[in-house]
Amino acid sequence: MPVNHKVVNELLTLAKKYNQEDVLLPVKDEFLIPENMIYVDGNSLGPLSKKAKDRAIEVVEQQWGSSLIASWNTHDWINLPQTVGNKIAPLLGASEGSVICCDSISVNLFKLLSAALLIQGSSQNSDNKTARHLILSQDDNFPTDLYVVQGLQDLMSSASSQGCELMSVKSDHIEKSIVQYGDQIAVLMLTHVNFRNGDIHDMKRLTTLAHGKGILVLWDLAHSAGVLPLALDECEVDFAVGCTYKYLNGGPGSPGFAYVAKRHLPALRQPLSGWMGHKQPFAFDHDYQKADGIEQLLCGTPSIISMSVLDAALDIFANINTLQIRAKSIDLNTFFQSCMDTLMASYEHQTEEKQDDESLVLACKKDASERGSQISYAHPSAYAICQALIDQGVIADFRAPDILRIGFSPLFLTFTDMVKAAQILANIMFTKAYLAPEFNVKNRVT
Amino acid sequence: MPVNHKVVNELLTLAKKYNQEDVLLPVKDEFLIPENMIYVDGNSLGPLSKKAKDRAIEVVEQQWGSSLIASWNTHDWINLPQTVGNKIAPLLGASEGSVICCDSISVNLFKLLSAALLIQGSSQNSDNKTARHLILSQDDNFPTDLYVVQGLQDLMSSASSQGCELMSVKSDHIEKSIVQYGDQIAVLMLTHVNFRNGDIHDMKRLTTLAHGKGILVLWDLAHSAGVLPLALDECEVDFAVGCTYKYLNGGPGSPGFAYVAKRHLPALRQPLSGWMGHKQPFAFDHDYQKADGIEQLLCGTPSIISMSVLDAALDIFANINTLQIRAKSIDLNTFFQSCMDTLMASYEHQTEEKQDDESLVLACKKDASERGSQISYAHPSAYAICQALIDQGVIADFRAPDILRIGFSPLFLTFTDMVKAAQILANIMFTKAYLAPEFNVKNRVT
Repeated sequence: MPVNHKVVNELLTLAKKYNQEDVLLPVKDEFLIPENMIYVDGNSLGPLSKKAKDRAIEVVEQQWGSSLIASWNTHDWINLPQTVGNKIAPLLGASEGSVICCDSISVNLFKLLSAALLIQGSSQNSDNKTARHLILSQDDNFPTDLYVVQGLQDLMSSASSQGCELMSVKSDHIEKSIVQYGDQIAVLMLTHVNFRNGDIHDMKRLTTLAHGKGILVLWDLAHSAGVLPLALDECEVDFAVGCTYKYLNGGPGSPGFAYVAKRHLPALRQPLSGWMGHKQPFAFDHDYQKADGIEQLLCGTPSIISMSVLDAALDIFANINTLQIRAKSIDLNTFFQSCMDTLMASYEHQTEEKQDDESLVLACKKDASERGSQISYAHPSAYAICQALIDQGVIADFRAPDILRIGFSPLFLTFTDMVKAAQILANIMFTKAYLAPEFNVKNRVT
Repeated sequence: MPVNHKVVNELLTLAKKYNQEDVLLPVKDEFLIPENMIYVDGNSLGPLSKKAKDRAIEVVEQQWGSSLIASWNTHDWINLPQTVGNKIAPLLGASEGSVICCDSISVNLFKLLSAALLIQGSSQNSDNKTARHLILSQDDNFPTDLYVVQGLQDLMSSASSQGCELMSVKSDHIEKSIVQYGDQIAVLMLTHVNFRNGDIHDMKRLTTLAHGKGILVLWDLAHSAGVLPLALDECEVDFAVGCTYKYLNGGPGSPGFAYVAKRHLPALRQPLSGWMGHKQPFAFDHDYQKADGIEQLLCGTPSIISMSVLDAALDIFANINTLQIRAKSIDLNTFFQSCMDTLMASYEHQTEEKQDDESLVLACKKDASERGSQISYAHPSAYAICQALIDQGVIADFRAPDILRIGFSPLFLTFTDMVKAAQILANIMFTKAYLAPEFNVKNRVT
């Protein structure tokens, strides 16, 4: 299949112009992306940065290796969860002292869902009929969110017939369900940006609606933090969790974060009451007495090496803001989409045949400004297409059952990358390169 | 205060002989201990090893940096929790597939206590009077263990009047309590080696006694794993948790481990049901279906960097066994104690005065073979004494309110280290160097 050089060159010229206008372009130099790789999977695992690499060596060799146990004091490991939390806070529109870094997103969900149920339980009257026991969520939520509710439900129902119950509905039925079942709902738990199609919930509107019905609201920010402007305090969100290994580039399995509105901190109770959440961990008291601040969400000893690497990676955000990031995200996303349209049309024109039955189908909102920092295509061979892309250095990902997901991390991608990635994808589609047997062996777990 | 050179030289000669007889001496070369430091705090944070250092660089630069998301497959990150679990298993006397590495000890405690309560709840009859709701533990347990029960109790009692209840008794009342309250006890949760005084519970005896009363048994192995021979399978222990940053040298806050007897795996339910514990995490099913094996204890995405470093550190144990380790631990411990006795007596002889009122008081079993790999002294100025030791390069630790704790990690300490450490400690006691103001400022958190 001959490439239409004229069309590609026009797109590359356009990309060059966009690169020149890109205020975030210099940030790219902070990252260590392998040569000849176009990494459009920063929404799954952000890449290594120079700061993160240097810190990894420092925390292992200079801190652990040389200062050993004294590092808890001399390198302030003891406050690392708060330090990192306070670096994440501005990205969430959250005030200092309302965000902490610890554990995983799943574990933090369990803590905050439990805490929300404990608040609702203590404020309700004793008439079981009106007890708020439902946790309302979207049925297309990231599975871990739904699984954690199921685990909590299982544990609590072992102790009573009431406990809590998951109510998962279609995303576009959320508002209706809040209105209809409001007095039975304890918690509204939603993921701000859907991991498959990038749909964005209206945080302000839904939070306000739920609050009007006495419902507490918990947002999962896994696909929002670091790439979308957020305003947790302003939206009066109660709780939020998020992950740091996607757009925050913290490294594989870097610890999650948790946000609690300050108004809830004094009375909050969360069941994972490990020693690091104690008011005085090193007093070794017999009884648990929670810390006053956000550190009451800590449980066990934090993963210092992983958290230190994340701490360094977050410094890249020090002088940029989420409005700049979102603007570039939309521009990259829109430009990639238009490159794909242009190239597919050009190929079709050359071959004078349409490939309707085997084309990529847009599986997300058409306008990039209405979706998260990704584009999703549905295709029966999405897995193989993704493998073929990877084979040519374009690292995208596949989400079962049939989604090819391409993520746009504005801190290290250029508009030129968009042309190249689109050219390779269009070429794979037209040559049907994805039919090769080696791309159809399902040996990839993520 | 003049040092009695003759006595010290005799002890050093003895140490040299013991070093020559020490089969574990070559293992010391695996570790990167700073020069002029005697590190007797491996029971709090094990030191950096060459293997761990090399792997830290490899996982960050070669794996994350170069292979990025593909590392989940190409570097088998996805199976790391099982791989590491299976390296820990032989140290616990546990079979392959019964140990997993994940989260923290506190989080794992919550999972397994909940799982145990769910087992007991489903096997009991509906008569609440006979319901097993007590979690029996020792009142001198490491606080996090007790706190986690309190958190679980709080959560479950919000759902019913029954829930669970912590019953903490003196360690030497455990047997009596099992006999007296056996039919009300759901779980016996004990820490094998006490963190303050090193007391060791008889695992076999207590487990068997508890089982006779229908009680499930959970052991905390924080101060046992990697330094004491353990036989979880043989003792028919139900559950265990442990930490990897002490004698396993996994690095600061390296993830914990959890053991489940294989007989419990098929019916086990644990409430922290995150996506990584799902039978098919990447199928993204709506409903939680737990994995068959020990990986059902996984919750969120594991801390890959921290866990990889631990994985490498564990390779040091590949060709040595826990009997060798325990033998050297007792020898070091006994020799240190006798050095202290000899030096204190020698100093007393020189000065012709006893310092009874200000001497270190042994706060543990007298015979090293009857305690964990540590010696504990009580003293009103224990904090300042510890600081004075650190000032002279002997890194010990203080445990509130008045314990000076010296830990013996057999993999990197020599008998010569014991003489030097004892000499410095004896000197501090006799010169009362610990009274200096700089050692009495409490600015140290751990």
